Amino acid sequence: MATQNQQICMVARPQGLPKLTDFKAATAPMTVPGEGEVLVRTIYLSLDPYMRGRMSEAKSYVSATGIGDMMPGGVVGEVAVSNTAGLAVGDFVEGYLGWQTHATVKADHLRKIDPTLAPISTAVGVLGMPGLTAYFGLLEVASAKAGDTVVVTAAAGAVGAVVGQIAKLKDCRVVGIAGSDEKVDYITGELRFDAGINYKTTDDLDVALRAACPDGIDVHFDNVGGPIADAIMRRLNPFARVAICGVISQYNATADEPAPHIYRHILVNRVRVQGFIVFDFAARHAEAYAALGQWVSNGDIKHKEHIVVGLENAPQAFMGLFDGQNFGKLLVRVGDDPTR
Amino acid sequence: MATQNQQICMVARPQGLPKLTDFKAATAPMTVPGEGEVLVRTIYLSLDPYMRGRMSEAKSYVSATGIGDMMPGGVVGEVAVSNTAGLAVGDFVEGYLGWQTHATVKADHLRKIDPTLAPISTAVGVLGMPGLTAYFGLLEVASAKAGDTVVVTAAAGAVGAVVGQIAKLKDCRVVGIAGSDEKVDYITGELRFDAGINYKTTDDLDVALRAACPDGIDVHFDNVGGPIADAIMRRLNPFARVAICGVISQYNATADEPAPHIYRHILVNRVRVQGFIVFDFAARHAEAYAALGQWVSNGDIKHKEHIVVGLENAPQAFMGLFDGQNFGKLLVRVGDDPTR
Repeated sequence: MATQNQQICMVARPQGLPKLTDFKAATAPMTVPGEGEVLVRTIYLSLDPYMRGRMSEAKSYVSATGIGDMMPGGVVGEVAVSNTAGLAVGDFVEGYLGWQTHATVKADHLRKIDPTLAPISTAVGVLGMPGLTAYFGLLEVASAKAGDTVVVTAAAGAVGAVVGQIAKLKDCRVVGIAGSDEKVDYITGELRFDAGINYKTTDDLDVALRAACPDGIDVHFDNVGGPIADAIMRRLNPFARVAICGVISQYNATADEPAPHIYRHILVNRVRVQGFIVFDFAARHAEAYAALGQWVSNGDIKHKEHIVVGLENAPQAFMGLFDGQNFGKLLVRVGDDPTR
Repeated sequence: MATQNQQICMVARPQGLPKLTDFKAATAPMTVPGEGEVLVRTIYLSLDPYMRGRMSEAKSYVSATGIGDMMPGGVVGEVAVSNTAGLAVGDFVEGYLGWQTHATVKADHLRKIDPTLAPISTAVGVLGMPGLTAYFGLLEVASAKAGDTVVVTAAAGAVGAVVGQIAKLKDCRVVGIAGSDEKVDYITGELRFDAGINYKTTDDLDVALRAACPDGIDVHFDNVGGPIADAIMRRLNPFARVAICGVISQYNATADEPAPHIYRHILVNRVRVQGFIVFDFAARHAEAYAALGQWVSNGDIKHKEHIVVGLENAPQAFMGLFDGQNFGKLLVRVGDDPTR
């Protein structure tokens, strides 16, 4: 067993897009687990756009990461040392353990994973926070129902791909917006979305949306915000619902770019626009895990991973999230996965 | 009885603020009521900001008024000729009869008014569409509850004044935004709002809002949109609700002025922003009439009217709505009110 814990810390607040010099590798001693604690060896670190928000001092729903602090993040790992009856050495767990190779943590901060149900990496993907976000955002916040036309942005991403597939299972018409032809082919092919739009090559997004959504749009599951969201707003039907899950177009903005006023659209069409985060539904996570687990094991929901190897490569991979360099759920394999 | 029906028609679509030459007086023959119909003599015509939307061809929830068509509007009148068992000559009624002195209309398009309960003019005010709009917007769309800080814009207007008073009855902290010191004195004095802001004389609306809303804002009942709404957005609490009732700042806009992106605020604070119109709650109007009628007769809800005399003065009075020249519910007395 390693005797040093490797970490990656934030050493400067990014101005605009994060850059390599905003991060620094560090070592920390490994702590012996106290009563009720375990030592976890990180196998997969999840990289997600929300982390950019943590790097900023702007007001948000959780406090910002401090300068010099370890970067936060969800992890799938293996119990290396246990000082609790509930978890044994070799058990697989998921928790919010950060960008590091090892973590000493209370057992009740971890979720135990059954590696026979699905690959353990899905515990930070389709069977983890991104999957739950898709589930509650689409079905609760956006109240999607059969017959709705659902548009999802960042449609090939960890959340978007699950949103679209759940919407198909609920008999919606599903249109995905993504940033490459390869991603559009994936969502309309393997994931069976009804239509896809490559926003980077479309001359006129309004025209493309009209063609893809001949009956207008009833649900917008938004991961990006910005001009794409504005174009979708113009095509919403009366009583449409917009679930704001992320605003990736804004995370790196250094100035607040002006936008059209959207109030008139919201009023005239009696739209409901609602922001949410997955923790708002904490009391119902078990329900979502059960539904998603069933769909994944049936093959009704597919998932794709983009795995980068080595904790030291996490900053570069994270930076790539903001121009869509990843194709599938972005993971860093920090340590060996004994199940593969 | 007059033998000519006087009307006011729209003869040009306004560019920006409506002007007198967009309107023209006209006469039309008075139609003898057919079976099930009555002839109504207009007493009060209600002037409301939504009418500006009808003058535009922009997509909205009802079709636009055509060039040369009579201006639409709510009316309180008296039955002059009846050809139905349900209404007698001399009965008072309210209906969507337009800018004219007389209307021949099916009885089932009218609501009969009891003149002993409240002044008949209230049937297009606190006990009419504006009152219902306040009731459903505040209690249903915005889900206001005891302890909430509620901000309402156009706070001395027909809708805003009722919103604030209902919110006080529900034990909210109420802050009104209005466009003159006289209006602010009125809402904080006679209407017992907790605080008021004159947006025309405030140097820094952000600072004024912070002072007036020390615990942040839980509900924004918005009648105006634009930069005032943007400032309120920056002060919203987690899980705040914004009910968009009107966007008076936008109705006369000739170009879409740029606004800050609001998506990030909506996401981070998990805000619910929802547009509505009162007809969405048609099935529950009786409930609202009962509640409002009780409050008005108790003296719990006060109302103020701004009455202009003569149908020919309706265009000028209507134009004044957009810079807040009226103080109280704006009405045109088109014909004698036998109850006053």
